[in-house]
Amino acid sequence: MAGQSVLVTGAAGRIGRVVLRELSDRYDIRALTHRTEEFSSFVGDVTDLDAIQPAFEGMQAVIHLAGSANVLAPWGIVLQNNIIGTYNVFEAARRAGVERVIYPSSNHAIGGYEIDGAPEIYELDDPRVHDHTAELRPDSLYGVSKVYGEALGRYYHDMFGMKVYCLRIGSVRADDTSRPQNTEREAAWLDLTPEQKRKRFRATWFSQRDCAELIARCLDVDEPTWAVVYGISNNPRQMWDLSHAQEALGFEPQDSADIDI
Amino acid sequence: MAGQSVLVTGAAGRIGRVVLRELSDRYDIRALTHRTEEFSSFVGDVTDLDAIQPAFEGMQAVIHLAGSANVLAPWGIVLQNNIIGTYNVFEAARRAGVERVIYPSSNHAIGGYEIDGAPEIYELDDPRVHDHTAELRPDSLYGVSKVYGEALGRYYHDMFGMKVYCLRIGSVRADDTSRPQNTEREAAWLDLTPEQKRKRFRATWFSQRDCAELIARCLDVDEPTWAVVYGISNNPRQMWDLSHAQEALGFEPQDSADIDI
Repeated sequence: MAGQSVLVTGAAGRIGRVVLRELSDRYDIRALTHRTEEFSSFVGDVTDLDAIQPAFEGMQAVIHLAGSANVLAPWGIVLQNNIIGTYNVFEAARRAGVERVIYPSSNHAIGGYEIDGAPEIYELDDPRVHDHTAELRPDSLYGVSKVYGEALGRYYHDMFGMKVYCLRIGSVRADDTSRPQNTEREAAWLDLTPEQKRKRFRATWFSQRDCAELIARCLDVDEPTWAVVYGISNNPRQMWDLSHAQEALGFEPQDSADIDI
Repeated sequence: MAGQSVLVTGAAGRIGRVVLRELSDRYDIRALTHRTEEFSSFVGDVTDLDAIQPAFEGMQAVIHLAGSANVLAPWGIVLQNNIIGTYNVFEAARRAGVERVIYPSSNHAIGGYEIDGAPEIYELDDPRVHDHTAELRPDSLYGVSKVYGEALGRYYHDMFGMKVYCLRIGSVRADDTSRPQNTEREAAWLDLTPEQKRKRFRATWFSQRDCAELIARCLDVDEPTWAVVYGISNNPRQMWDLSHAQEALGFEPQDSADIDI
C-alpha cells in the first residue's frame, strides 16, 4: 500500500532516522518528535496523550519508535516512556481510527534464554534458536515493558480489529558504513569478554536496510493482521528465529554479519 | 513450610479475607491494607513503595492481592493499582530479601479465547481447554496488566532467584454458603443471556477453600520455583487447564460446580 500516510513516533531516534531516510519515497511519512527537529511534522511527548492526539488524525499507519531503548533503564524511565507512552500511542491510534500499528518490541522480551546460554549460544555450531512461541522471559524492566507492549498490541488487535505487528529487534547500529565496533554500552548487562561481545553482535546485527524492509513489509501486508517476529539480518550466528518473519510477512534479509571477528 | 511469615497485600479484599480466615492457623500471616482494618498489621497503599517497604521486612513470603480486580477498570486505575502497585510489591520484596511471591494473575490474560468461543465454550461437551502455554490474549486493560505482572514475576524469578507463582484465578464468590447467583457485574464484558452467564459461572467457579488450598500449595512447595497455573475448582464445564496445577504444585481441588443450572 504505497503512498499510505504513516506517522513515525520517536522519529529522531536511531531507527526513526532509518525509516525517514529509507521509506520516505514509498510512503507519506510524518514525523512525531518530542523536541523540534528540522523534519518534525508534530512535536509532542508520548507521555501526554492529549498532546500527541492531533498527530494521529488521518493516518493509516503508525510506527511507534518513541520510548527508551536502554536495556538498563531504571523503573521511572521505563514506566513513563515505555509503559505509559505505549498505551498513549495505541489509544491515540484507536481514537483516530488508525488501521495499523507497528510496534518495535525487543529480543529482551526473551533475554532470559540468552543469559542462560551465553557465551556458548553465540557460537556458530550452537543449535539454540528461539522463536515467537518461546515462553516469555524478560531480562530487564525494559524487557518487561516490551512484553507489556506486545500484550497491549494484542488487546487492541483482538478487541478493535487493529492490524498490529510486533518486531523483536536485534542490534541496529547508528552507522552501517564502517566495520562493526563494540562500545562499552554494547551488552553491558552481560559479563562478556570483548571477543564474546563481538560474537554477540554478529548474532544480533540488524542492518539498517533490512530493518527498513521489515517495517515496509508490515506496512504492506494484508494478512496476517497480527504477528510477532524477530528482526535480525541473515546472520550465521543467529539465536532467534527468522523463519516466521519470512513465512508470515515475506521478509527476506539482504545482509548477513561476517562469521569472522 | 508451616509457620512461615507471610505478608498479604490487599488483605481486605475478597480473596484476602479468605486467606486470613483459612490459612491463619497454618502460617504467621500479616495483613497489609490501604485503609485501617481491625486485622491490619500494616497500613499503606501499594502505589507508594516507601510507605509499604516496612511491611516486607522479615517476611518469607508475600501473597500480592492488592490491586483492581475489575475487568472493566479504566486505564488510570489499572496503571496505578495494578501496574505501578505490582512493581512496588515485587521490588519491596526483593529489597527485603523475601524468598517467595504469590501473584494472583487472571484468566483475563487469555480472555481472547473465551470471547472467540462464547457461548459454546461453556457447554459440557465443548472440548476447548487452554493451558499455561497458550499464546497470551488479554481481553481488557486489566488483562494486559496481568500479563505484565506475570512478566515482572518472571523477571524477578530469573534475575534474583525469587520463587514466583502466578495464579490465573477464575471466579471467587464473596460467599460460598449459598447457591451460586449471578449478578449484573458477572461477565459484564460479554453479551450473554442469564442462562449463559450461569453456565460461565459453572465453568469458572473457584471455591474459597480450593482457592486457599492452591495458595497454600504455593507457600509449601520447594519445586518448581516458577509456575503459571489456573485456579478453578474441578468444574465439569471447565475451559482452563487444571492438570498443570495438579502436576506442578500438587493441587487437588475438593469442590466442583454443579452441572445443572
